[in-house]
Amino acid sequence: MRAFLDARQAGHDPQMFMANGVMLPNPEKPERIAVLRAGAEAAGAVFEPPRDFGMGPIAAVHTAEYLTFLETIHPRWKRIEGAAEEVIPNIHPDRRQANYPKSAVGQAGYHQADTACPIASGTWAAAYWSAQSALSAAEAVAGGAGAAYALCRPPGHHAFADLAGGFCFLNNSGIAAEWLRARGLRPAILDVDVHHGNGTQGLFYTRGDVLTVSLHADPERFYPFFWGAAQERGEGAGLGFNLNLPLARGTDDAGYLAALGTALQRIRSFGADVVVVALGLDAHEDDPFQGLRVTTEGFTRIAAAIAGLGLPVLVVQEGGYLQPALGGNLTAFLRGLG
Amino acid sequence: MRAFLDARQAGHDPQMFMANGVMLPNPEKPERIAVLRAGAEAAGAVFEPPRDFGMGPIAAVHTAEYLTFLETIHPRWKRIEGAAEEVIPNIHPDRRQANYPKSAVGQAGYHQADTACPIASGTWAAAYWSAQSALSAAEAVAGGAGAAYALCRPPGHHAFADLAGGFCFLNNSGIAAEWLRARGLRPAILDVDVHHGNGTQGLFYTRGDVLTVSLHADPERFYPFFWGAAQERGEGAGLGFNLNLPLARGTDDAGYLAALGTALQRIRSFGADVVVVALGLDAHEDDPFQGLRVTTEGFTRIAAAIAGLGLPVLVVQEGGYLQPALGGNLTAFLRGLG
Repeated sequence: MRAFLDARQAGHDPQMFMANGVMLPNPEKPERIAVLRAGAEAAGAVFEPPRDFGMGPIAAVHTAEYLTFLETIHPRWKRIEGAAEEVIPNIHPDRRQANYPKSAVGQAGYHQADTACPIASGTWAAAYWSAQSALSAAEAVAGGAGAAYALCRPPGHHAFADLAGGFCFLNNSGIAAEWLRARGLRPAILDVDVHHGNGTQGLFYTRGDVLTVSLHADPERFYPFFWGAAQERGEGAGLGFNLNLPLARGTDDAGYLAALGTALQRIRSFGADVVVVALGLDAHEDDPFQGLRVTTEGFTRIAAAIAGLGLPVLVVQEGGYLQPALGGNLTAFLRGLG
Repeated sequence: MRAFLDARQAGHDPQMFMANGVMLPNPEKPERIAVLRAGAEAAGAVFEPPRDFGMGPIAAVHTAEYLTFLETIHPRWKRIEGAAEEVIPNIHPDRRQANYPKSAVGQAGYHQADTACPIASGTWAAAYWSAQSALSAAEAVAGGAGAAYALCRPPGHHAFADLAGGFCFLNNSGIAAEWLRARGLRPAILDVDVHHGNGTQGLFYTRGDVLTVSLHADPERFYPFFWGAAQERGEGAGLGFNLNLPLARGTDDAGYLAALGTALQRIRSFGADVVVVALGLDAHEDDPFQGLRVTTEGFTRIAAAIAGLGLPVLVVQEGGYLQPALGGNLTAFLRGLG
């Protein structure tokens, strides 16, 4: 299987992470890359660097305003006397229609939903090349590959059109799906990360040409809290084209696979001709976030069920954090694709 | 002049304050109370404890959901293993219509716009009695007093119907204005705090029965960033009933008084029969926030201009932080009312 990764993706090394009012180490570490790469290679993946598709396919789902912010905010922030090394928001608008300030602090609050997506000097390049890896894998699939893997790190599924969050800056899965759609394909995004794919949902919420489906721990008491409920079904032309399957905390393989069956039926009903899997491995029973209890073998079964659709599969890496089973979970998933 | 203050208002002692990604001491200290009280007494104010108007007048401008949050969140938050002493948000919804989670962390992000309004064990009682002080002063004015002073601390003007922010929890000025309106009066709120009165604006933004006017440092590069622009004029029935007068950073007495003239003309045009002054003293040249350059003598002139309306004046304390001139600025303002 062709796989994509750029060395610059390691240049993002976030430190800040506030949870429950306490500073903790940020779990989205660059060390994830080597573990995931080894896990993919154990399943036969062969890595190559992505090609550069430029800004166009990124700006097809993100606002130019937001992309300017991501690319330019760090040096502007550092000009503030006494500012922290990383761009971290501390005040947020109540709605997207609020005034857009000139202040770096104000723009940070406008474009960063939480304290888990700090921006430092290497962040933009890492996010940019993470997106290019997704696009390169999309191109491989569009070119006839039955499956391809993008080691997207930083991840993307919490990033909205103009809003970073939850370790994510550019929505790699969404960028890839939109690129495929623009080439005449009919993509469904299936998000199996333990956290709801709120950014991905947001990108396509009012559209009927890209199906978005997410299985995740119930957000009533789990990140991202404000998004991911079953009643979020899309709006306008998108009504009926978003499916959320919130799962009770601690759901095991059997419960997960049952919900996955509902997801796959929806993808069939959409007439998808390509599936973008937003592959979080944090639904695993030993992941630090402890949301669900999927086993390593469970990931193989999840992948096999997806393969049962008989469609090309673009696998885009999302979450899944350092723990002994992380690499093996990726191996298990990619092997399950068959 | 009658003045109101409850001892429980000192029970709120916030610690957390993140600015530019760095932790700093929270400037909204309970020590402000003694300084402001002495400043008011030097102008002839005689303090008494407020009477208890109950929750009704508070819930007339704040949602019951939000009041439940403020009153109950701290013990729920403390049940989170390893949580900080204070309730501090770390993730925020993109809109008020987002799902309302059961999680304490999620509710904190829903109801706290920034990291400057931490909630600890004494916060609710302090905010409650601060509001009762405002109501008691409103009652004094409604009963015939030409002026009354409420030493509202914590302050209130950044608090929306369902959203705390900027040291504020309950919108004391708005609660008092709505109480006066319900008694058949026609109140105008004149906010002279250096920061835009975004919460107050929000409370009455779609209504034409309470005029809101705010003079403040231009929010393009100053807190609260997302609100306070001149083009925010109200919506629906409220269109034309909100006036923002953003001032260039460093505006002095002359520039301030010129803008105040515009504000007072609008209040006359509204046919107000009572003025609620949201009195921040942080427009002073030596205030730590360094937004504007009003002098101590300038506060006397501001008050004299307000007194020129010939209307009863309810003075509700908002910001103004510890610095040598703080108490004297309050004395100067209250003397200027004549």
